[in-house]
Amino acid sequence: MLMQRLAEGIDRTGNPSVIGLDTKTGYLPQGVTEVAEFNRGIMDALCGAVAAVKIQIAMYEERGLRGMADFFDAAEYAKEKGFIVIADVKRGDIGDTAASYSKAYLSKDCIDFVTLNPYLGYDSLQPFFEDCGRYDKGAFVLVKTSNKGCADIQNLMTEGRPLYEAVAQKVTAWGKGYMDGEYSRIGGVAGATYPGELRRIRSIMKECFLLIPGYGAQGGTAGDIAAALDGNERGILINSSRKVLLAYRKSGRDYRDAARDEVLRMREEISDAFANSRKDRQDLI
Amino acid sequence: MLMQRLAEGIDRTGNPSVIGLDTKTGYLPQGVTEVAEFNRGIMDALCGAVAAVKIQIAMYEERGLRGMADFFDAAEYAKEKGFIVIADVKRGDIGDTAASYSKAYLSKDCIDFVTLNPYLGYDSLQPFFEDCGRYDKGAFVLVKTSNKGCADIQNLMTEGRPLYEAVAQKVTAWGKGYMDGEYSRIGGVAGATYPGELRRIRSIMKECFLLIPGYGAQGGTAGDIAAALDGNERGILINSSRKVLLAYRKSGRDYRDAARDEVLRMREEISDAFANSRKDRQDLI
Repeated sequence: MLMQRLAEGIDRTGNPSVIGLDTKTGYLPQGVTEVAEFNRGIMDALCGAVAAVKIQIAMYEERGLRGMADFFDAAEYAKEKGFIVIADVKRGDIGDTAASYSKAYLSKDCIDFVTLNPYLGYDSLQPFFEDCGRYDKGAFVLVKTSNKGCADIQNLMTEGRPLYEAVAQKVTAWGKGYMDGEYSRIGGVAGATYPGELRRIRSIMKECFLLIPGYGAQGGTAGDIAAALDGNERGILINSSRKVLLAYRKSGRDYRDAARDEVLRMREEISDAFANSRKDRQDLI
Repeated sequence: MLMQRLAEGIDRTGNPSVIGLDTKTGYLPQGVTEVAEFNRGIMDALCGAVAAVKIQIAMYEERGLRGMADFFDAAEYAKEKGFIVIADVKRGDIGDTAASYSKAYLSKDCIDFVTLNPYLGYDSLQPFFEDCGRYDKGAFVLVKTSNKGCADIQNLMTEGRPLYEAVAQKVTAWGKGYMDGEYSRIGGVAGATYPGELRRIRSIMKECFLLIPGYGAQGGTAGDIAAALDGNERGILINSSRKVLLAYRKSGRDYRDAARDEVLRMREEISDAFANSRKDRQDLI
């Protein structure tokens, strides 16, 4: 079901990337006047080159009702084109309220995954988790984010280890009730900008997919990310947004061609880095 | 400015309550077909009896674009009627994304406060905080929520104290840069369901307003909440939602009259509890 579709999509495209449609109006190239048109163009160009897209809802909420219509347009078009769709909403609230948030996204055919914030604890995530089982959906819970300030809270030492490790353990335990084949429907978010931590998180979250932001524009490298591969050299989704959406500014080509070229370049970079990492591990044996 | 307006509104109404417009379609009484009509009726009835309303966005997001239109209708009508408006959005994301969320809510005339999630650290909150200074707005950061599961993360022991105390200290420190008269624009959310913790949080967050959910339907009492009053017997906002919105089901009266009666009853209950707490403290001296 979902987790198998995700793994197969990554195998088919040879690409563990997910493209972040964090489209601001300022990103549109000359001649494109609508966010929805730009998003559709990007998705047309990336079809077959990448299995999943992630839509950051903040950029759409910023533009009110019009923006929200564009958010759902992107999700629906993505689904039509066969992409797996992650709604990057980072919601978190108590029981009843969480159920409303879950209904807002996970009950929709066009959305496969949501991202969630763990600060309010299990009962705030449970309505989403239950909907994951009910509707064949999944969730990525924030464990270690890619920003500098993440250390303020996530690195506080708690019972001899940083908080993010405790969160990783809890999310793993909570996710055991929501297995879908060899992976749990409940994965984690762990930034590429902290490779040591990423390795620790993988060692804890063995049966979880990791959604990895921070590659490219934020400074994380493909080599850094290789640390997050699971025993089957799988189990990760690497997000890239601006470098793909804005590739046209560097190359001067049509935004769709530029985005596709950038995604294919990333795929090669990632594939090389993973091959090197495999070689390093084999040399050690 | 904002914090003074809030304090004055509470003094004028004699009521530190904030009414949560967490309106689900299932809450509408016979004869009322639209959420916007219901919300406007509630606000008409509560004018002068309470200074602030809190709009829980999840219940509106659940209904898609139509729901979001109702969310902004409620905020705009509230502003027109002179209420202080809290957008309960509990957002939290990294830099650029946080800036988009902040623009979505704090740049709007009809919204005075947002609620925020601290898990991603200071740089994820900073864009909101800066907009608070820029637009004369405020924010309440989650410290200790009212749900049972909050202990999963918020009570983890970190450097000899539970995480929520560390968060309370950080939010207090971060808020010092955003003072508006005697209060910081940056307050905390602390549930009425944990009175001991509420007292600890007040002792840490001396110059902060506390937004207190969990009163009424969730089991927190007015006596429990008295522990959160600051040195001037102020500095709190007590949220009540369902008990007010659904008061008509108990009384059989028009939903507006029933809501107003319930708010006036709450005001008396809170006022009595605070008087008793004052007396207890004086007896101790």
